[in-house]
Amino acid sequence: MPLRHPQLNEKGELRHLLTIEGLPRELIHHILDTAASFVGVSDRDVKKVPLLRGKSVFNLFFENSTRTRTTFEIAAKRLSADVVNLNIDTSSTSKGESLLDTIDNLVAMHADMFVVRHAESGAPFLIAQHIDRMRGRGHVHVVNAGDGRHAHPTQGLLDMYTIRHFKGDFTRLRVAIVGDVLHSRVARSDIHALTTLGVPEVRVIGPRTLLPGGLEQMGVRVFTSMREGLRDVDVVITLRLQNERMRGALLPSAQEYFKQYGLTQDKLALAAPGCIVMHPGPMNRGVEIDSAVADGEQAVILDQVTFGIAVRMAVMSILAQS
Amino acid sequence: MPLRHPQLNEKGELRHLLTIEGLPRELIHHILDTAASFVGVSDRDVKKVPLLRGKSVFNLFFENSTRTRTTFEIAAKRLSADVVNLNIDTSSTSKGESLLDTIDNLVAMHADMFVVRHAESGAPFLIAQHIDRMRGRGHVHVVNAGDGRHAHPTQGLLDMYTIRHFKGDFTRLRVAIVGDVLHSRVARSDIHALTTLGVPEVRVIGPRTLLPGGLEQMGVRVFTSMREGLRDVDVVITLRLQNERMRGALLPSAQEYFKQYGLTQDKLALAAPGCIVMHPGPMNRGVEIDSAVADGEQAVILDQVTFGIAVRMAVMSILAQS
Amino acid sequence: MPLRHPQLNEKGELRHLLTIEGLPRELIHHILDTAASFVGVSDRDVKKVPLLRGKSVFNLFFENSTRTRTTFEIAAKRLSADVVNLNIDTSSTSKGESLLDTIDNLVAMHADMFVVRHAESGAPFLIAQHIDRMRGRGHVHVVNAGDGRHAHPTQGLLDMYTIRHFKGDFTRLRVAIVGDVLHSRVARSDIHALTTLGVPEVRVIGPRTLLPGGLEQMGVRVFTSMREGLRDVDVVITLRLQNERMRGALLPSAQEYFKQYGLTQDKLALAAPGCIVMHPGPMNRGVEIDSAVADGEQAVILDQVTFGIAVRMAVMSILAQS
Repeated sequence: MPLRHPQLNEKGELRHLLTIEGLPRELIHHILDTAASFVGVSDRDVKKVPLLRGKSVFNLFFENSTRTRTTFEIAAKRLSADVVNLNIDTSSTSKGESLLDTIDNLVAMHADMFVVRHAESGAPFLIAQHIDRMRGRGHVHVVNAGDGRHAHPTQGLLDMYTIRHFKGDFTRLRVAIVGDVLHSRVARSDIHALTTLGVPEVRVIGPRTLLPGGLEQMGVRVFTSMREGLRDVDVVITLRLQNERMRGALLPSAQEYFKQYGLTQDKLALAAPGCIVMHPGPMNRGVEIDSAVADGEQAVILDQVTFGIAVRMAVMSILAQS
Repeated sequence: MPLRHPQLNEKGELRHLLTIEGLPRELIHHILDTAASFVGVSDRDVKKVPLLRGKSVFNLFFENSTRTRTTFEIAAKRLSADVVNLNIDTSSTSKGESLLDTIDNLVAMHADMFVVRHAESGAPFLIAQHIDRMRGRGHVHVVNAGDGRHAHPTQGLLDMYTIRHFKGDFTRLRVAIVGDVLHSRVARSDIHALTTLGVPEVRVIGPRTLLPGGLEQMGVRVFTSMREGLRDVDVVITLRLQNERMRGALLPSAQEYFKQYGLTQDKLALAAPGCIVMHPGPMNRGVEIDSAVADGEQAVILDQVTFGIAVRMAVMSILAQS
Repeated sequence: MPLRHPQLNEKGELRHLLTIEGLPRELIHHILDTAASFVGVSDRDVKKVPLLRGKSVFNLFFENSTRTRTTFEIAAKRLSADVVNLNIDTSSTSKGESLLDTIDNLVAMHADMFVVRHAESGAPFLIAQHIDRMRGRGHVHVVNAGDGRHAHPTQGLLDMYTIRHFKGDFTRLRVAIVGDVLHSRVARSDIHALTTLGVPEVRVIGPRTLLPGGLEQMGVRVFTSMREGLRDVDVVITLRLQNERMRGALLPSAQEYFKQYGLTQDKLALAAPGCIVMHPGPMNRGVEIDSAVADGEQAVILDQVTFGIAVRMAVMSILAQS
């Protein structure tokens, strides 16, 4: 399925943010630089800038995610936007047609931005494509806040912000992504971002049953042994193990998974000195990560959250200017 | 059941908006004129005016309706009001008494406006009546956002705005309302508005089982044949067919309904040239309307949505001044 | 279980509001005095002051309560804060660990205040303790909006505001709390507040099965007879009887309860002249209170609601300054 869609306008500016795949390196750095200017805003006494004043941001959550919705809501409010939350039960909008009728309606209310979360891969693309086909009417920007197994670009960007913040130069790094890569939109977004930013060695570690095919063609080194894969890496990105996997046929048990792939201090000692530990949240402590690591000195998991607000403010403000 | 209630204060100003029935023609035109001044606001870069700054608008939705709630929320926010959404499960407020206790509480919080959606006809009247009986305390304005089968006045007003926008003069028009008139609060509001505004010929088209008695006494011409009813009309308002009707005893099947009353290009050709097609949304494509018509040149369905925001801003700002 | 936690910082200022137990008398009066200055704000045309502009207030409701959430939301918005509502299903956060991970995440978003409602006693304490242990990061203030059977301090404070408003001096009063004291966090907060403010006679009235042990040690006089307990009191606080109690083993029936402990005009006549009647809401008319009393001249139940907004504004603005 080709999920490509021109995210950039004819001047090369960001018109929608749908996926990191295909984003030019300079544009990613521009987003990260803009985010850097917003990190201070959330530290101030009055955490607000008027960049989106009088704009209407709609959080369209076809899949429930309080955490992600909150990050976008707070980012939009700190930009002074008016935010409307819509939790749309997909059971009542099963037909693709009625999804687009919903979109037509919200566009007609003169929305400025849609933050879209959807259980089906490609839904934000479909929406962006539909908007761009409207002549004259459609000036709405679409931000993909996670679609199925496909992409979660703002998570990928905040991961890059975090790595750049702690490690500086991307071109000398070894980065390992650990866990359920097969079902992870975060992994997919991170791999595209790391590759684009020139990371020379991207590794993936996990059990065969949770690794998709075609990783080598993406320039990724594949490991099934945690100890081998972690050796000398500068960054470890631990993925969340979905509860349904633990009970499913793909894994023996959560205990067994932890024994082999759970990130412990012991295994982390194999990484390079100063290696940072990341996790997109929410964590399953004792499954994919040990509490001693999650709360340890090398973890930058809460920094990711803080930077995530700034990155979402950056994306929204850049979109609003295009 | 007498659902009349003085919506106007002693100076003839709008104090609540409960129903279009009995609203003076000049007042309807005043609302539409005010709405015209707000259409531009949603087009501006900063879509905000400070008319309701520091006012508290409560969306009291005793019946779930994300779409309608969104239109009122965005209208109130563009007027700079503080908006609080309350989805009130009527299963826990089955007694009339506790409905009024809820209202007393919200009034005591110094609310300024209640936007009320309720499954039971007359609930917004009951609330307005109750508020007007409070001496000294009750300055809250009530807007009916749809009550049972009774009324949906802002929908009626936005329909009138749309007709006036595209057709100009009401006094030379033929307007047909098609479908499930029996269960439709939109139809009832539209008939009152069209009659008040001097439309010389209001028609209703539908199967006998979905037409209420007493239409002729309201000055309406009744048709059961789509082809006869559509002949030479300037405006067609297609009503939504509720899902429960399609499965119920009142109709043979959705397919059969579409065949007889679904608006197709073919049937629409019988109307006057330049006839506009309206629908209150959400549409059942292939049931009451064919996609070719819904997306065709004569459809003004999304204009209705756009004008709906302006009309709701107008109603709220007029109420706030009374 | 010791649920104590330093709510005050080293300067004796309010850092969190977790319980009324242990709050110094002067601090309670300071909160009530500050609330008095906010009563006028909700009466004004523009009901807004900029004291919390650019602050992020998170309503963390682990237990659903539309009414309480609304009072905090409107209070925060009238202080110009940005408010984010999070209804967190505790079924998905069953482990204490993941509660604190949720908190860590929201702190990392640079929250300023958490308004916490939780079905388990002590949850807001746990959260406040956790925040205070974060070095450098945690500047978030916690307001307990009701935790299990333990405390509901803003309700206690608004009750005190109401008593002070109508009765002036606390040191000459007889106050009776009637009903299900055993399960009531409101009763517990009120007893602590009344005792601290120097009320010489605090009474509790109810059936033995609904009275906890240890009341006498708190300085409270216990009555099982309504007629004896009400004699000469200046204030009656009627507690809500939870529906589950009516069907449970602790009570014969709602009718029988009303007969013995329901507040009627007849029983109220035994109190001192000018006795005021309070209720935290929502009321069960005909169970713990008769409609004639609830709507009668001695009831100040809706004043409690009005003062409740001002008291919550006071608490939030005092916390924001510490």
